Amino acid sequence: MESVMPMSGTRWALGLEYDGHGFCGWQRQSDQESVQGVLETALSHVAQCPITVIVAGRTDTGVHALCQVVHFDSPVVRPPEAWVRGANTCLPKGVALRWAQAVPDHFHARFSAMARRYRYMILNQREKPALWRNHTAWIYRPLDVQTMQVAAQTLLGTHDFSAFRASACQAKSPIRNLCRLQVTRRGDLIAIDAEANGFLHHMVRNLAGVLIAVGKGDRPVGWAAEVLASCDRCQAGVTAPPSGLYFVAPRYPAEFGLPVDAVDAGFLMGH
Amino acid sequence: MESVMPMSGTRWALGLEYDGHGFCGWQRQSDQESVQGVLETALSHVAQCPITVIVAGRTDTGVHALCQVVHFDSPVVRPPEAWVRGANTCLPKGVALRWAQAVPDHFHARFSAMARRYRYMILNQREKPALWRNHTAWIYRPLDVQTMQVAAQTLLGTHDFSAFRASACQAKSPIRNLCRLQVTRRGDLIAIDAEANGFLHHMVRNLAGVLIAVGKGDRPVGWAAEVLASCDRCQAGVTAPPSGLYFVAPRYPAEFGLPVDAVDAGFLMGH
Repeated sequence: MESVMPMSGTRWALGLEYDGHGFCGWQRQSDQESVQGVLETALSHVAQCPITVIVAGRTDTGVHALCQVVHFDSPVVRPPEAWVRGANTCLPKGVALRWAQAVPDHFHARFSAMARRYRYMILNQREKPALWRNHTAWIYRPLDVQTMQVAAQTLLGTHDFSAFRASACQAKSPIRNLCRLQVTRRGDLIAIDAEANGFLHHMVRNLAGVLIAVGKGDRPVGWAAEVLASCDRCQAGVTAPPSGLYFVAPRYPAEFGLPVDAVDAGFLMGH
Repeated sequence: MESVMPMSGTRWALGLEYDGHGFCGWQRQSDQESVQGVLETALSHVAQCPITVIVAGRTDTGVHALCQVVHFDSPVVRPPEAWVRGANTCLPKGVALRWAQAVPDHFHARFSAMARRYRYMILNQREKPALWRNHTAWIYRPLDVQTMQVAAQTLLGTHDFSAFRASACQAKSPIRNLCRLQVTRRGDLIAIDAEANGFLHHMVRNLAGVLIAVGKGDRPVGWAAEVLASCDRCQAGVTAPPSGLYFVAPRYPAEFGLPVDAVDAGFLMGH
């Protein structure tokens, strides 16, 4: 135990970036490498005792994060740089801490989050991509972004999103408030930006799947609202692939002062 | 041999994209996987006979290409889609053909090229990157882009670039005409765009290395011109890492009508 620290406080929030390719998703598994697993191993090494983290939003195999947030309670005192630099030295190449910040005991990475932001990236070109194959979804048929955007707007608001929910979803309620679903194009790249108070399992990828079907012209623009109204997962069709999905960042009350609202989702597109 | 083709012509130009990570560079090697090797294997499969290609600009291990161009002479008749789709089916994930176009016999991927464009991408942030670790160079010390840009302008023009040339370089002359060297920043990302009639071995990475030293403040802004004037490779210092380097595209005379001038280097930055 050290005692030279300028601050006490045992609860920490961490921001981390990861490349979902190569991990079996967020949640710790006994037989495969997970983001949670490698992060807890790295933090435990820095703390010299076992550390368990709570995450803002779990992600599936292949899904990326620009600024995932976790919290944990540390029995040892360390400066923020020690967590960041120390853990980054231990973490595999696809995972990196961005920041560490002491937070009050009532902060909870999951329950304090007022909203989560996701971005879904599509490369809409005839030939297969090479450079960005693990960082976008590839759709070779031309997509009509304006139609997708019109369809997206019919899904906004507080609804029962059962039709966009994976069968394995463990959430108690299927009601969510989807406050943003924006479809934009720059050249061959299409971004779908989604924000809600929370998302059901596979919800963003199922929303993307419905918008892609509309964008291809396989379904009319009104179909998105029909799927929503059906509350029936069998109506929504294809779950879009994980390689295009980014957990951008959660939103927290300003009192915690966490650097999450400024996270730039525009890395791949410049907007 | 098929005979239903709308066009004859046995010389083809191909545009291809590749992720340098995972290849030992462009040139065919007996013991490692090269981009040339996998491309020739794929084309030979489509042609059902051995195909050898000539490239516009060789690239080193880890260096990417947005639109590399090759030409080859085919003894068999195939439509453009057959080359592209057929080869893309055989190529590993990190390499993809973008287009195939029949060209006159006097077209030569290397000798017809009037200029080559490269982009060097730097992620200038304190902590290590995770998502873009293989697609950017990471510099954790703050870089002054305006100073880099001033230094870059002192290198423009026709010069003896011996100071920026690898010792293994096989070019007959070290004289090149560098017509563009532009440094721009968007958030934590810095791009160095370079265009010349040709580049010596490691020239872009050595230019980047000198500009990075100036940007860090380790060297004064006038140092770039001093290094150039010295014609001495020992003066230039560090060769910047390959992960940040993209071969964007070559330029050819308009008579060939190849879709290379429109290649967008702004994928990562939106400009």
